[in-house]
Amino acid sequence: MAPEKKNKSVLEVDDELLDDITQLIHDRSDAALKNILADLYDFDASVIIDNIRDDEDALYLFSLLDDETAGEVILELSDDRRELFSERLSGEKLSDIVSEMESDDATDFVSDLEEDKQEEVLEQLDKIDTEDSKELRELLSYDENTAGGIMAKEFIAVNSNMTVSEAVRVVQERGEEIDQFYNLWVVDDNNVLAGIMSLKRLIISMKDPEKLVKDVMNSDVIYVEAATDQEEVAKIFRSYDLVSLPVVDAHMRVIGRITIDDVMDVMEEEYQEDVARMAGTDAEELERKSPFQIAKLRLPWLMITLLIELFAVFVVSSHNEILEKVILLAAFMPIISAMSGNTGLQSASIVVRGLDTGIVSIKRWWEPLSRQVRTTLIIGVAVGVAVGVIGYLISDTNKLSFALSVAVSMFISINIAGVIGTLSPMISKRLGFDPAITSGPFETAFQDVIGITVFLTVSTYMLSHV
Amino acid sequence: MAPEKKNKSVLEVDDELLDDITQLIHDRSDAALKNILADLYDFDASVIIDNIRDDEDALYLFSLLDDETAGEVILELSDDRRELFSERLSGEKLSDIVSEMESDDATDFVSDLEEDKQEEVLEQLDKIDTEDSKELRELLSYDENTAGGIMAKEFIAVNSNMTVSEAVRVVQERGEEIDQFYNLWVVDDNNVLAGIMSLKRLIISMKDPEKLVKDVMNSDVIYVEAATDQEEVAKIFRSYDLVSLPVVDAHMRVIGRITIDDVMDVMEEEYQEDVARMAGTDAEELERKSPFQIAKLRLPWLMITLLIELFAVFVVSSHNEILEKVILLAAFMPIISAMSGNTGLQSASIVVRGLDTGIVSIKRWWEPLSRQVRTTLIIGVAVGVAVGVIGYLISDTNKLSFALSVAVSMFISINIAGVIGTLSPMISKRLGFDPAITSGPFETAFQDVIGITVFLTVSTYMLSHV
Repeated sequence: MAPEKKNKSVLEVDDELLDDITQLIHDRSDAALKNILADLYDFDASVIIDNIRDDEDALYLFSLLDDETAGEVILELSDDRRELFSERLSGEKLSDIVSEMESDDATDFVSDLEEDKQEEVLEQLDKIDTEDSKELRELLSYDENTAGGIMAKEFIAVNSNMTVSEAVRVVQERGEEIDQFYNLWVVDDNNVLAGIMSLKRLIISMKDPEKLVKDVMNSDVIYVEAATDQEEVAKIFRSYDLVSLPVVDAHMRVIGRITIDDVMDVMEEEYQEDVARMAGTDAEELERKSPFQIAKLRLPWLMITLLIELFAVFVVSSHNEILEKVILLAAFMPIISAMSGNTGLQSASIVVRGLDTGIVSIKRWWEPLSRQVRTTLIIGVAVGVAVGVIGYLISDTNKLSFALSVAVSMFISINIAGVIGTLSPMISKRLGFDPAITSGPFETAFQDVIGITVFLTVSTYMLSHV
Repeated sequence: MAPEKKNKSVLEVDDELLDDITQLIHDRSDAALKNILADLYDFDASVIIDNIRDDEDALYLFSLLDDETAGEVILELSDDRRELFSERLSGEKLSDIVSEMESDDATDFVSDLEEDKQEEVLEQLDKIDTEDSKELRELLSYDENTAGGIMAKEFIAVNSNMTVSEAVRVVQERGEEIDQFYNLWVVDDNNVLAGIMSLKRLIISMKDPEKLVKDVMNSDVIYVEAATDQEEVAKIFRSYDLVSLPVVDAHMRVIGRITIDDVMDVMEEEYQEDVARMAGTDAEELERKSPFQIAKLRLPWLMITLLIELFAVFVVSSHNEILEKVILLAAFMPIISAMSGNTGLQSASIVVRGLDTGIVSIKRWWEPLSRQVRTTLIIGVAVGVAVGVIGYLISDTNKLSFALSVAVSMFISINIAGVIGTLSPMISKRLGFDPAITSGPFETAFQDVIGITVFLTVSTYMLSHV
């Protein structure tokens, strides 16, 4: 009954495996369950515990883990299960688990606890390990979206005047405590950051063990301050291909360490935020399960969209006369607004990406604008002609002027959409808002209103004059 | 004139710095320029070269770099500049640069070259280093979206029967060749993967240098085969918090190594693809600059949207009669379609994310459906009431039945949108398409048509019966 492995190295959780485990839980076959758990990577254990249907069964299986594994597993669980376990487990048990976590994980975990539970856990921790709990309280004090909020206190700093063999001894003594350990920070006598040395460099330098660390280290070290925004941190990791990065205080003293796994979490978070915004909702939705909570997150977006669309109601109502005469115009409204909304969205999302990656600079706003406009001119002609032909074929009377009306207004509204779609992310950013907000439903609603206004104005003019 | 550094460690490229450098280029002050370049991280050099306005100036500055730096810098350049430089530099110069790259980067770079240039570079490489060019030809043969396509040939494998001190010597001899080096692969006499040893473990094990590698290594090693899809590779890195991963052939022999920086590129690529799809365009757009090329990428999406919207034209035309009687209905069409399109998009994008992260399983399709429907029931009531009130206030005659018409059809179409938005990503995935395609403009266009159909059908019924 060994769990099946995918890629021969990674676990594939299927219903059969889950049924077997659930059966063992019901039989209270603790020894067999512990055997299975011992063979698993922490992540795989978390997937299994997440996928066990019944909450009580899942909690039972979780309680069989030793504190260290429990600390790794609880971090990988879905938010639902993690919240449930946090509620159900005693403050004492939770603090045992937390004391086994790395400090950055402990911080994330404790900061998500209910206030009462949080206090309980911190008090218990004071009893277990004063040093640990002091570190944790320090980390909890940083804004969670900054370098301070994602850093860990586990790092090894060696003095630049140490010899290579002394540095090796430090690693041998303390390396075991630290996961994800690839670089040593090098500091001077005042604890000020002086350089960085990779473990590879340390091993190579051992050819000459009496050399001083300062003579083999890399003194050109990239670092951040605790207040640096986490998105900036992620950008630095990606630009310079880092796996870990020292965090310093205002006096350049090393106070922490950020590792690549935290940065991947930041990237994932940002990504979910952007996608949620484009869909007109909130990334938190992924973590909420009650329909009422989800509805509460979505409704503000929908209500603002509704308000914007109200303008369309007024625009259409005020063109009663022409609509009553040429009722077919109403039939073309959805096409006009969908096509211009879409073109605006295309431009907006490209500019938002460009702003993210630095390809687009607000200072040179005319560059993307000129490119987007030249693009929408081409698109406007193509779509305008297509819509015009359709209009010609469908209309009964005034065929030519009707076709011209729809074609011309399609062309105009697509080009307006291109301009607005290009400028609005830059303006939002300039005003200090998240530009991604302009590549979502507000953008399309806005284009809806403009598209319909252009369409009905142009048609009124053309159908009464041409 | 030392470049300003942001965060005191990372370069801030401003116009002034660029102007100074441009001036030095015009003066042909090679020594000063080389001094500046020598102080820069490769990434910063690439940012500067990207931001120099004139192509010739940029190429001049680039040509001052030594081959190794040039190899790092050219990879970080914008696609435009990289393509330009690839065209302008001779095959000989390019192959000098390529021969200094790590094999995975060399593969990416060479595979992007024009066919003629590619052959020229490969032929030149044969002359410089047969081994390198053999590796490169091997890597070029893998699908670029697989583990084989992103792996590098630079890795160190030690025999499991070596002693720790022998392994250390191997690292000291060959470590210099390898960037981003954190783990040793351990193989048996047949070159079959037997384990993994981190450099940290190697240093700690040196306390007992005569121990055998097999007694200190981690035999529980995660690996992938060359054919594994790159998205799967990224998922494995994230799940198990890896920084490097061995790639094996069908006989479990180690053939390559994937590092975290490549995985971050894969994540970034995926992300851009998803965002582009949601906006109804193609991620390639970010790499294309000619308006004609961009228009060519966008037009298919727009034309399919147009085709879907054509149904709306027919639906509206076939409700001529009621529209002529109650022209205000036309004014409410944009609201109905925008709100239901939006609700569908919200549901779709959440389900797409859920499928990505594994929270949503197609086998248990009713779980997200039930949650989404319970959510849209609440949203439908809230938005329905809001639209109903607006309808009541705006209409002149038949106030109550008009308000009821818009409220009821808003409620129904929002709920239909929720169901379609939830099911369509799962159906697409089941049929083998990218589910992300259903959270873009096709989704909203489709909801447009449905929303308008429901609205006009319900209104016709209610306004003639109530």
